[in-house]
Amino acid sequence: MTTASPCEPLLAALHALLGERMSTSEAMRAHHGHDESCHADALPDAVVWPHSTAEVSAIACLCSQHGVPMVPYGAGSSVEGHTLAIHGGICIDLSQMNRIVAIHEADLTATVEAGVTRMQLNRELRHSGLFFPIDPGADATLGGMSATRASGTNAVRYGTMRENVLALTAVLASGEVVHTGTRARKSSAGYDLTRLLVGSEGTLAIITEVTVRLYGMPDAMSAAVVNFDSVTGAVDTVIQSIQCGIPLARAEMLDALTMQAVNRHSRTDYPERPTLFLEFHGTADSVAEQAAMVGELAAANGGGGFAWATRDEERNKLWQARHNAYFAGLQLQPGSRCVATDVCVPISRLSECIEATYADLRHEGMQAPLFGHVGDGNFHLMLLVQPGDEAAMAQAKAVNHRLIQRAQGMEGTCTGEHGIGIGKQPYLAAEAGTHGIAMMRAIKLALDPAQLLNPGKIFSY
Amino acid sequence: MTTASPCEPLLAALHALLGERMSTSEAMRAHHGHDESCHADALPDAVVWPHSTAEVSAIACLCSQHGVPMVPYGAGSSVEGHTLAIHGGICIDLSQMNRIVAIHEADLTATVEAGVTRMQLNRELRHSGLFFPIDPGADATLGGMSATRASGTNAVRYGTMRENVLALTAVLASGEVVHTGTRARKSSAGYDLTRLLVGSEGTLAIITEVTVRLYGMPDAMSAAVVNFDSVTGAVDTVIQSIQCGIPLARAEMLDALTMQAVNRHSRTDYPERPTLFLEFHGTADSVAEQAAMVGELAAANGGGGFAWATRDEERNKLWQARHNAYFAGLQLQPGSRCVATDVCVPISRLSECIEATYADLRHEGMQAPLFGHVGDGNFHLMLLVQPGDEAAMAQAKAVNHRLIQRAQGMEGTCTGEHGIGIGKQPYLAAEAGTHGIAMMRAIKLALDPAQLLNPGKIFSY
Repeated sequence: MTTASPCEPLLAALHALLGERMSTSEAMRAHHGHDESCHADALPDAVVWPHSTAEVSAIACLCSQHGVPMVPYGAGSSVEGHTLAIHGGICIDLSQMNRIVAIHEADLTATVEAGVTRMQLNRELRHSGLFFPIDPGADATLGGMSATRASGTNAVRYGTMRENVLALTAVLASGEVVHTGTRARKSSAGYDLTRLLVGSEGTLAIITEVTVRLYGMPDAMSAAVVNFDSVTGAVDTVIQSIQCGIPLARAEMLDALTMQAVNRHSRTDYPERPTLFLEFHGTADSVAEQAAMVGELAAANGGGGFAWATRDEERNKLWQARHNAYFAGLQLQPGSRCVATDVCVPISRLSECIEATYADLRHEGMQAPLFGHVGDGNFHLMLLVQPGDEAAMAQAKAVNHRLIQRAQGMEGTCTGEHGIGIGKQPYLAAEAGTHGIAMMRAIKLALDPAQLLNPGKIFSY
Repeated sequence: MTTASPCEPLLAALHALLGERMSTSEAMRAHHGHDESCHADALPDAVVWPHSTAEVSAIACLCSQHGVPMVPYGAGSSVEGHTLAIHGGICIDLSQMNRIVAIHEADLTATVEAGVTRMQLNRELRHSGLFFPIDPGADATLGGMSATRASGTNAVRYGTMRENVLALTAVLASGEVVHTGTRARKSSAGYDLTRLLVGSEGTLAIITEVTVRLYGMPDAMSAAVVNFDSVTGAVDTVIQSIQCGIPLARAEMLDALTMQAVNRHSRTDYPERPTLFLEFHGTADSVAEQAAMVGELAAANGGGGFAWATRDEERNKLWQARHNAYFAGLQLQPGSRCVATDVCVPISRLSECIEATYADLRHEGMQAPLFGHVGDGNFHLMLLVQPGDEAAMAQAKAVNHRLIQRAQGMEGTCTGEHGIGIGKQPYLAAEAGTHGIAMMRAIKLALDPAQLLNPGKIFSY
């Protein structure tokens, strides 16, 4: 694969194209070569800030002509090293492509540039009665969320980016622009290029525009916090609710250590026990009915102390506390980095998977906050490591290794929502199998023969 | 591309492998070389009935060694010519691979062999309290439904095969077996090979096993038939319901001519006016609430004469009448073949698209039943043509041509659920664009370089 440093003619051409919107400064390169993951920094040779699909196309043409890697960059909130320029090259920062292109309220769709963040889109929608539900913890860009097949707390009800991206505009390595999908709600027209690019982590194309589905704001929304004697009680309450067909809008579990971290970080006073954060969407009557049914299941599983939030302000505070769980967890060991695990298993195996993981932690003499989107079978363990502590890092990676093997042994996946990036490549190979990986490589080579798009991510060459 | 007839050594090898489960008889070849579409018959050179993924793999190895095309075959219910062996070769009939591999009730998943039909799966589930919602009119196989990205009447609530296939086992042209996806509800693990194969129409791999999502049978289900002064009133009732966030489970519109055909075929006595067939799923209270809200919208749009069906038997009769609409339509002109249109547009444009289509029919002096999944923006026009009437066929194709252009001009698609097959290839080219088609071709050539898998479907070479 090509790892040539950008030659002066390329940098000169990019400067001619973009002027001040191209930088080779140490500070900018360092900012873009560092991320939320525990992977080592890896700086690009230059950073560019295009303003249009046409400019991205021109940049891709130039990089291709010079055989230089391209690394798409959104909000930089990846926890799997997606934006690290491990083979150097040009970081294409799409954050200035942040226009709302069109909101079609009657069709429940929005088309936005790749740099629009989920919160920006929802601010834009606030008077429309519509909302966009997908919410990874960070205020990620819709381009980045598409590229990593992100999800979040609402996925149990509304699906992930896989289900909610209708169409994309993307730039291929050659600079050619493709428009995948249409604004129709469904289609059987040829290969599903949209779903192929969703989750491709910038290795097949650079996403520049995204059309997503929107949803009507429900008549009634009600959130609740309920605590349990055990993690199993909390998890089983959610699983049984799903098996009963109760359309939970959100069902998040935070264990006692996570609740302790949340209380410290968000200055809340929740009981520091295994806790569910729940939300119900519907009409006033159906929300009351759903809540009553879940309340009964919770009581039967040792849950108690329901605290309700129905006003928007209370609900937002509650979910902000949940969204901050990652940052709260980091503060348990100030200065630490986090090995974030991300397995997802069939829901019937979730309690068993979590219990076996706690047993492993006890055996290792470790503590780690555990929380997750239990309605999807997806949970995260925050394995905190002080920089430079090689032994602790090795121990954390070994716990993650065993956790992934456990999940894959239960017909689950090594990553529910974070993506493969750099660190999960061996696990993808195990999960997809020899022929599955060979199919992925064949597709990669067919669409990016010079391997210039985000090289070294998903698989190495 | 290869169009060599199967040589004797291949036929001998297939016979040695499969014995009586290989046939070159004229009758079997004719049966498999004919379909529901208006395309000309095209017979395979032989038909095989494998019983396992291993046998499909062995067949693929043999076909590849001899450079002979392979055409996967399920229930033969395609209306776009997918199963016609237009380049000859071996028809791989998967209907005897009809075992239910596993039903995981607690996880709401089922794994079945490709030849299992949707009704067979639902019969198997009848005591479990679960069901599989995707229902194209015919009793198609789950392999075929996956390969064409099928949907049906429940898609407005439960999605299409795109949203409901979790994992696949498939055989590549080389005979290699891939397992895509896992039983986890979501994943970010590498390229979405599952979604790439869903809708690939047998051109990338032969699907041999399918893992799908199941749903809990709702506490209450209630269906209703309501008739309207105008098609627009019926369509607008559905669109407004969706825009209000009412979770319709089914919302089918049948125009007056279709209702006439249904009455004749199913011996019903519905008013022969534009009609909605609706269904509501939920708890008893929420179903009543949904029905009341839709009732108000219907009344405001000129709807009346609500007839309710709440008992299973009544509901089944109603939906059977709807599922038979295609066959009922054919009987309006006995002996005719049907050019079935399948556009899908953003829902805000649906009334306009239908009205313009009626205007075109009036201008042509034609009548054609029109019905569809209006909640998705998808509708079908049955353009009936007597065999051999070239002028009528040309006129029908011209109407479909203008309809597709109209839909694509409204940011819609040429096919909502039938697929591209043989007839819609020029429209796919227009919809996907030069670079989109080039991407699809590159993927095809990367995965099936000798172009032996269902050649001539989706695109010609």
